[in-house]
This record gives sequence, structure tokens and C-alpha cells, in this order.
Amino acid sequence: MAQIYSIMHQVAYYECDINQQMTLPSLIQVMIKASEEQSDSLNRGSAFVNHLGLGWVITNYELTIQRLPRLGETIRFSTKATAYNKFFCYRDFYIEDEQGNRLVTVESVFVLMDLVTRKIKTVDEQVIAPFESEKINRIKRFEKIPALTNPTSQPYRVRFYDLDGNQHVNNAIYFHWMLDVLDYEFLTKYQPTHVQIRFDKEIEYGNIVDSAYQVIFDADAQTAQSIHQMKVADQLCCEAVFTWHVMD
Amino acid sequence: MAQIYSIMHQVAYYECDINQQMTLPSLIQVMIKASEEQSDSLNRGSAFVNHLGLGWVITNYELTIQRLPRLGETIRFSTKATAYNKFFCYRDFYIEDEQGNRLVTVESVFVLMDLVTRKIKTVDEQVIAPFESEKINRIKRFEKIPALTNPTSQPYRVRFYDLDGNQHVNNAIYFHWMLDVLDYEFLTKYQPTHVQIRFDKEIEYGNIVDSAYQVIFDADAQTAQSIHQMKVADQLCCEAVFTWHVMD
Repeated sequence: MAQIYSIMHQVAYYECDINQQMTLPSLIQVMIKASEEQSDSLNRGSAFVNHLGLGWVITNYELTIQRLPRLGETIRFSTKATAYNKFFCYRDFYIEDEQGNRLVTVESVFVLMDLVTRKIKTVDEQVIAPFESEKINRIKRFEKIPALTNPTSQPYRVRFYDLDGNQHVNNAIYFHWMLDVLDYEFLTKYQPTHVQIRFDKEIEYGNIVDSAYQVIFDADAQTAQSIHQMKVADQLCCEAVFTWHVMD
Repeated sequence: MAQIYSIMHQVAYYECDINQQMTLPSLIQVMIKASEEQSDSLNRGSAFVNHLGLGWVITNYELTIQRLPRLGETIRFSTKATAYNKFFCYRDFYIEDEQGNRLVTVESVFVLMDLVTRKIKTVDEQVIAPFESEKINRIKRFEKIPALTNPTSQPYRVRFYDLDGNQHVNNAIYFHWMLDVLDYEFLTKYQPTHVQIRFDKEIEYGNIVDSAYQVIFDADAQTAQSIHQMKVADQLCCEAVFTWHVMD
């Protein structure tokens, strides 16, 4: 059975949007902190991995959101490295309130990249063993992200502070670029209930990211779907689909 | 004697830049969290202040930086509301490492704004009394911020996530706009040792902020000075001067 690791976190005002709910970028950042702390606790932190000439790269997130954490609330972030196959490591995260109610569930895919060639490497047993993940043969398939048929877009230049202590564009920043294109009215009326995101290519400091999107409303169901594509020049770097529901 | 309030904080990877040092925006955010927690603990939180039709606005920060907190370090943020006069409340912050060494000292000025008229009000005794600040007559003067003689500038559009759980553009965001204009080479070579910043006018969602700046190098002393002005249309909203020193 995969080892579970948890951290407690109190939601600060600067992690919340004007709805007084924790933003997705902040949620992703704390979630990844939990997985880094687990790796450190098992002596498989970034120093160990980098020493092998490797680095972790996240290729997919699937988020299922019952409700977002609220300002001031103390929540538990848990994570376990559930399974792996030749190339892919599967890690689950879940966020619970103080009563143990599930707020958010995240499935994710990590791969090991060669730091010199920037190519994906097979999963190294000495890196993965301490997590006690299940070894599997099958490859997990995620739902296909719909194509954009009538997109609008906005440019974002990668800023110095979009790079983090891990020296990469923090993948939480992609959520800023994807969500900021949606307008104020939308973001104060709807909240996300499901997110499927795929990271295709690294984005670097100074790049201009074209954040394209399209929103499809279903007024009867009080839901909406937003489809997103991020490109640098003509290269697709990230795509995502969000399901939204009118806030209570 | 003014009451001192402290919180402990462990510096997370997402609060650090690629130098693995805590960024100024993150530092300011945690600092303000400490002052909000003090206000809440004295029943003078935002609910109490808003109920009187008032809101706190920060007009000045002066930071003196011995060194910036490092990734993973646990640090203490302390604050006290030292003194007040008819219009201005003076609050000090200081950040110490686990051995009690002073890392950063911040002096700040807060005013109370009428939420309807957006005008500054005289300091309300019932708001300030529990902090046990000294009542003074003099007005504290900060060093004048030099004029820009040969500026370069870059535009920044206020994004949805620049608004925080307090429903304003988080004042830490101004540091993003000011610092991002400096280039990668500068920001990985120099670190700030002193900052003087004055907030003149609120910036709102959707505004385009023109972030103008100028850097003056003193190669012999291994120091630099950067001067900053932020405007929305022709209205000056914020100005600042940073002193920088080549990193160790």
C-alpha cells in the first residue's frame, strides 16, 4: 500500500480571491509542497533526483472539486504515490476540511526527465521504491480535451516571479493565465467543479504565452464549460477543460 | 507600551524566487497577515472596522533588509502598532530567524478611509485603543523619493487574481510590477537592502498600470539604486526607491 503523507494548512487572505475562496494556483502550490515534503521525508527529494541527472515534470492534473477551501479554514492536504509503470508515476492528492469531509480530489501524472537531453526517462526503481507504489502495466487514459472552435485569446509575458524556488515556471502560474482571461462577472458567478489539464511543453522566462479560450454555457443546468489552449508562438504548451457551476 | 504580536512561518518553495530567497511580495503578504491576526485577536479585525464604515489603507513602507529569508527556513514575523497621531497610525514589523537574528525591519503608515467617500478620516479611538499605541503629535517624515529623469516603462494590466480575500489589489502586487521590469540578470545579481515606497492612489481591477523605472549603478560600491513610479493614465499611484547590493 502506498504511503500517505499529510500536511495541515490554514488558508491565508492572500491565497484567496474576492469570493474569499482559496484560488486554484494557491491550492496547487500547497498540494505540491505536500508531495515535496513526502519526497524529502523519504530521502527522495530534489537533491537526490537531480544527483541522478533527473527532474520531475508534471504532465496531467485532474481535479474534482466539491467545494473550494475558505479564507481562514484549516485544511488537510494528503498525498500518495499510488502506482507507476515504465514511464508514468501516478500520484493522488486530496484535501479535507477539519471534520474530514473531502473538498478536492486530484489525480496527477509525473514523469522523470533527463536534465541534459530534456527527454523522458524510464522510471528509476531507486527513486520510486520508498513510496511503496504499486507497479502496473496499464497506462491510465484521461478524458480527451475538446478542441477550440471559436477561440478568443490574450497574451501573457512570463515574469521573473513566475519562476519559483525550483527554478521553473511554477505550474500553478498556468492557472493564472487560463483563468484571468475569463471576466470578473464570470469568475464571481461560477466556480469550478472539475478540471482536466495537460502540460505538453515547458514554458520559459520571457516567453509570450497566448492564452486562448472559449466558454460554452448551459443556462438550464446552471453550468458552463471553458476550454483552454496555451501556446508559445505556434507550439501548444498546455490545454485544459474546466466545468463550472453557478455559486450557491 | 504597544503590544507585540508574532507568528511563525516556514518559507515555502512557491514563496521564493530562483535565488531560493523569499520574494518581497510574499514577505509583505505574510507580514500583513501578522497584523491582521493581531487585530482579530484584539477584536479589531476588518469586520469591526468595516462596521464603522471604515477601512485600513497603507500609505508607506520603509524596509531595511539585512538578508532575505531562505527557502525552508522557519522565521518569526512580529508586529506592533507603535504610535498614532490625528490621521496616521505607525506600525513596525520585524522578521527574525530561529536564532533571533534580525533579518528585515519594516516601518509602515496606515490610515483609516471612509468606505463611502473614499476620504481619509481622523483616527478613531475605539479602533486604536486595544493596541496600546502611544499617542503623539508629530508627523513622521520619510525620505523623499528621487524623481525619474530618464525612465523606461512597461505596462501591466491588473488581473483578477491580483485582487485578494480583502477584495482589493493586494499591495504586495505592486512589488511584482516594480521588480519585474528589472531584468533577469539584475535580479539574480543584486539583492535589495533598503526600500522606500509610497502608495498615493488605489489601483483597480482592469486598470493598465504603467511601471516606469530607472537604475543608477555605482560599480565601485557594488550597489545600485532603482527608482520607480507607477501610473494609471496620468495619475501617479505609487512611487518607490530601492537600494541594491551585489549578492554574496
